[in-house]
Amino acid sequence: MTKLNIGFIGLGNMGGPMAANLVKAGHTVTVFDLNQSVVSELTSQGAKAGVDAAQCATNADVLISMLPAGKHVKSLYLGNNDNNGLIEVLSKNTLVIDCSTIDAESARVVGNALDEQGIRFVDAPVSGGVAGATAGTLTFIVGGEQTAFEKANTVLADMGKNIFHAGDIGAGQVAKICNNMLLSILMAGTSEAIQMGINNGLDPKVLSDIMTASSGRNWTLELYNPCPDVMETAPASNNYKPGFMVDLMAKDLGLAMEAAQQSNSSTPMGSMAKNLYTMLQHQGAGSDDFSAIFKLFSK
Amino acid sequence: MTKLNIGFIGLGNMGGPMAANLVKAGHTVTVFDLNQSVVSELTSQGAKAGVDAAQCATNADVLISMLPAGKHVKSLYLGNNDNNGLIEVLSKNTLVIDCSTIDAESARVVGNALDEQGIRFVDAPVSGGVAGATAGTLTFIVGGEQTAFEKANTVLADMGKNIFHAGDIGAGQVAKICNNMLLSILMAGTSEAIQMGINNGLDPKVLSDIMTASSGRNWTLELYNPCPDVMETAPASNNYKPGFMVDLMAKDLGLAMEAAQQSNSSTPMGSMAKNLYTMLQHQGAGSDDFSAIFKLFSK
Repeated sequence: MTKLNIGFIGLGNMGGPMAANLVKAGHTVTVFDLNQSVVSELTSQGAKAGVDAAQCATNADVLISMLPAGKHVKSLYLGNNDNNGLIEVLSKNTLVIDCSTIDAESARVVGNALDEQGIRFVDAPVSGGVAGATAGTLTFIVGGEQTAFEKANTVLADMGKNIFHAGDIGAGQVAKICNNMLLSILMAGTSEAIQMGINNGLDPKVLSDIMTASSGRNWTLELYNPCPDVMETAPASNNYKPGFMVDLMAKDLGLAMEAAQQSNSSTPMGSMAKNLYTMLQHQGAGSDDFSAIFKLFSK
Repeated sequence: MTKLNIGFIGLGNMGGPMAANLVKAGHTVTVFDLNQSVVSELTSQGAKAGVDAAQCATNADVLISMLPAGKHVKSLYLGNNDNNGLIEVLSKNTLVIDCSTIDAESARVVGNALDEQGIRFVDAPVSGGVAGATAGTLTFIVGGEQTAFEKANTVLADMGKNIFHAGDIGAGQVAKICNNMLLSILMAGTSEAIQMGINNGLDPKVLSDIMTASSGRNWTLELYNPCPDVMETAPASNNYKPGFMVDLMAKDLGLAMEAAQQSNSSTPMGSMAKNLYTMLQHQGAGSDDFSAIFKLFSK
């Protein structure tokens, strides 16, 4: 396997362990984050510290970014009032992989601007959480041209297990929010169906088994039952300790509602789920696992 | 296998082929329906014609009913102003199996009234449609005591493939509507997620594959994709020819809303799905397959 010079910008809960896995895979990884303590942790594991983002980008075969929101990604690459963007220093030999989960429109703006300069770009949002980032078992959903996807694939494989090609630039973000909007619908719908069964005298385990073997079958019933004590390994049976936090699902549903608005899409079920997750945040459950939506329905 | 005397009341689209499969299995089947032509069709296949419902019930080891709504089941067994109910003629040796899909409350009223007379009763609503009824591959979800369930099981196995025991009398109806409410949520949610992907430039087949391999996975993505030409065998690729009709899903959602009301259950996703299926009926799509809800979202 080819060892690469990789720049990595953004060493948060996800980015930190992702960069560490690239070091373990033998790549030369130059990292940057505004928080010096996370940089120190990575250098203790064998990464090099960049003095700034531009140093990470210069001479990199691959530059990876993992940032909170679209505005951060736009200002990193395209610049703002205070800083030049990396677009000024990036070489045409560098492949840019943005792993942030952001709005599709920002991904397209950044990706197309780089593309016009001859710099290859893919958006590659992840799922799998901190546990998946640490274990190197993340799922990446990638948007970008076929050759850029193939190059990205070889690097993403050092951090993840399932890598999908969703389409052109921005398609990774779109596919991820479509999936996560649907997941929120599955979780809310499964929760209210189980609770209605309980309210009518059914055993939630028996009802869950019947629906899993019938046309109600879905990922939450199979792997992540939201009713406490139905599935021993699920967050619901561990006081809704995450897992995947309510706050993160609410963020993804916000991105879904933006995409729906921008594309004039009708999303009644997703809108309802967004409202329910916002209610759950207001009840102080933002740090609970997203299956805690079950509590909205229980008596 | 024991050959039984079976009475069968209600020979509609589902009841007709179900009774025919009992004849094929070697049982002595005495049938009744207000429509003489469906009775004739069954007698041509080897059933005996009862002169009335009471004759079907008398001396039967097992009496099966398959009727449209709770009011029909209640008047059949408990009587009304014009007729005595079968409760007057049923023997304690007869097991009553009501296969109708009705409200759980009516099932409990009838079942408990029979039970007080020492007559065993199970509610056993079916899924699988006319095709499943004809092929003998129906799913039955059964409510009733364990010994009654075991006796019913031997007969239901001649008409179906999957037989679940959901709990006490009425639990079969509850579990079925919980499942079908959840199914309607899966179908509506999957439809709007795929359409939002299309509106943002994604290929519906690629997006469906990604979500099927991710946390959006559900029965509709696996077996019944609602977007035309994604899945060759799905009704969506055959002009939404049913399958399972919009009108029947709307009926089941009406039963779900009744159960939610009676049990003071909160069902925001199911309520939204009920409203969407009612809109679809108003647009003249009542006889389409229920996956036609996709059309509400398409541009």
